[in-house]
Amino acid sequence: MKNYVVIGCGRFGSSIAKTLHSLGHEVLAIDQNEEIIQNIADQVTHAVEADCTDENVLKSLGIRNFDVAVVSIGSDVQSSIMATLIVKDLGVPYVLCKAQNELQAKVLYKIGADRVVFPERDMGIRVAHNLVSQNVLEYIELDPHYSIVEIVTPAKWIGKSIGELDLRANYGVNVMAVKHGMEINISPLADDALKPGDILVVIGKNEQINKIEERG
Amino acid sequence: MKNYVVIGCGRFGSSIAKTLHSLGHEVLAIDQNEEIIQNIADQVTHAVEADCTDENVLKSLGIRNFDVAVVSIGSDVQSSIMATLIVKDLGVPYVLCKAQNELQAKVLYKIGADRVVFPERDMGIRVAHNLVSQNVLEYIELDPHYSIVEIVTPAKWIGKSIGELDLRANYGVNVMAVKHGMEINISPLADDALKPGDILVVIGKNEQINKIEERG
Ligand SMILES: Nc1ncnc2c1ncn2[C@@H]1O[C@H](COP(=O)(O)OP(=O)(O)OP(=O)(O)O)[C@@H](O)[C@H]1O
Ligand SMILES: Nc1ncnc2c1ncn2[C@@H]1O[C@H](COP(=O)(O)OP(=O)(O)OP(=O)(O)O)[C@@H](O)[C@H]1O
Ligand SMILES: [Ca+2]
Ligand SMILES: [Ca+2]
Ligand SMILES: [Ca+2]
Ligand SMILES: [Ca+2]
Repeated sequence: MKNYVVIGCGRFGSSIAKTLHSLGHEVLAIDQNEEIIQNIADQVTHAVEADCTDENVLKSLGIRNFDVAVVSIGSDVQSSIMATLIVKDLGVPYVLCKAQNELQAKVLYKIGADRVVFPERDMGIRVAHNLVSQNVLEYIELDPHYSIVEIVTPAKWIGKSIGELDLRANYGVNVMAVKHGMEINISPLADDALKPGDILVVIGKNEQINKIEERG
Repeated sequence: MKNYVVIGCGRFGSSIAKTLHSLGHEVLAIDQNEEIIQNIADQVTHAVEADCTDENVLKSLGIRNFDVAVVSIGSDVQSSIMATLIVKDLGVPYVLCKAQNELQAKVLYKIGADRVVFPERDMGIRVAHNLVSQNVLEYIELDPHYSIVEIVTPAKWIGKSIGELDLRANYGVNVMAVKHGMEINISPLADDALKPGDILVVIGKNEQINKIEERG
């Protein structure tokens, strides 16, 4: 178990804070907005309304004892830079920051950030790829050639079984799971017939997956 | 090639617009902010400064002829709802919307959104998992309980085979693939011994995956 402090609890920061807490870690959430602090209070270990550009406030919260700080302030560049400077100065070993653009990221790295992320940009890239091929819901690129994708069952596969379709031989892909509504089956049997609305989680070569998308 | 209209070009929307354009598609970008339109103009097909809550404006832009609309307005809930209503009404077949929370998503689905995404929340979940276990490289949430993760082989598993570890029985997860350097094996055999640097692609319940991350 580690101690995390999340500074700035907008949509991105609050999601990190809640997830870390749900994974069993100590999380201190800081935001200058009272309402935000009230809303997150019961989903983290501690929630404190404070201005993170005030070094004395951060000192008095014992920030020096945290293993990881997340500075998740996108819009107010000055607050983001100040907070990063202060937490690094107080000795936090690992600081992850949110940035809105490359220039801001450069500054954050210069002053000591260990990792800078661009959540909206990165998710935009993902979603754009998903849109171009609409029956692909999620994908992980395993390497330049292989991917895992979540794919809507192509219409012509409905009513057939995984064994009958012989996806391995015909498309070079393996079905790892089948989702239907709220249910997920991570050991689908070869003779399970595919139903409308089934979502397939498949692993395979990109070119083979693309073929399914095109033919599907 | 498809025609996309992106309404609201904040960080998320502009990333989608630019990516779609770079993938070779026609992209019309709309935002009420003049500066944003100027900045994106040379990275999309057309960029127009307009208020998307004005039906006549959208009509005159020929929105009815677009294949896909992206409504990427997070903060101004009313604009987001209005824009979604109008583009669905004008007959755009597929509308993807950004939302800040479940309630907003519900409303957007009710009025015809085909897919609602939460970019900051989803990226927050991803980053939190990465932080907790720096050996989790990639992460897909299949549903609230199951995930697929790419995980660095825990040290104590090295030299043992997948069959010997009996990950299915001991951790409730299935190994779908093993990556080593540039090679990837999507049908790993039970008696393949794990080597240092092997990356495992596993599917299973979040709580079981968390156990591997913690013990690993
Ligand atoms: N100086 C500060 N001290 C404490 N909290 C701050 C400070 N400046 C900004 N914040 C908080 O940081 C949070 C995130 O800031 P902001 O909404 O500007 O970023 P964002 O990147 O747009 O967020 P989102 O993740 O929602 O997209 C807000 O809740 C805000 O109250
Ligand atoms: N009625 C409207 N008509 C046109 N554009 C609008 C309208 N309302 C908001 N926008 C634009 O939508 C964009 C995104 O809005 P906003 O910044 O509130 O969302 P966000 O979710 O915080 O964005 P980000 O993706 O940057 O986190 C802004 O550039 C804004 O100018
Ligand atoms: Ca107050
Ligand atoms: Ca914002
Ligand atoms: Ca945002
Ligand atoms: Ca103007």
